[in-house]
Amino acid sequence: MIAVFAECTVQSGQEENFKNLAHALADKSRQEEKNVSYDILRETKAESNEYFFLEKWQDQDGLDEHMKKDYFTETIEAVNKIIRGELEIHVFETV
Amino acid sequence: MIAVFAECTVQSGQEENFKNLAHALADKSRQEEKNVSYDILRETKAESNEYFFLEKWQDQDGLDEHMKKDYFTETIEAVNKIIRGELEIHVFETV
Repeated sequence: MIAVFAECTVQSGQEENFKNLAHALADKSRQEEKNVSYDILRETKAESNEYFFLEKWQDQDGLDEHMKKDYFTETIEAVNKIIRGELEIHVFETV
Repeated sequence: MIAVFAECTVQSGQEENFKNLAHALADKSRQEEKNVSYDILRETKAESNEYFFLEKWQDQDGLDEHMKKDYFTETIEAVNKIIRGELEIHVFETV
């Protein structure tokens, strides 16, 4: 199993916009064959505008296929316009 | 849903020991009523001895109950002896 953990800081005033984009991306991603789960998270003690995408995929192929989808690239493009800096992405595998 | 992401750096030579402890903890945790999933991860591009626990719980009560279990406290005590520094723990909730 492959897990992706991506962190971003949303620009002030763009939280609702971000959540709409992120939830739509999550809904579509969950329908992909090799998706295991897809969650949009905040730290329980968060005071800042940091949000996290937590994704699980059956294998690397599943993640590769996901990243080729138009809705993925379009959403990331839109997200990049309303965050500060860049998405910080970490990819993990089960051991 | 509550997600826990805990990171640690395992002491050199203790990797197998750590993996045995972590997998036993994962197996027992998955049997808890409010556990959603429990994974032991490494970054795909990892070169260091960093390992991650990724846990999902139905709610905060589920996590609280988990942390009261003897096998949890005993495993964390054992893990603390074979890592460098301390476990770095982050708790998240779905938004």
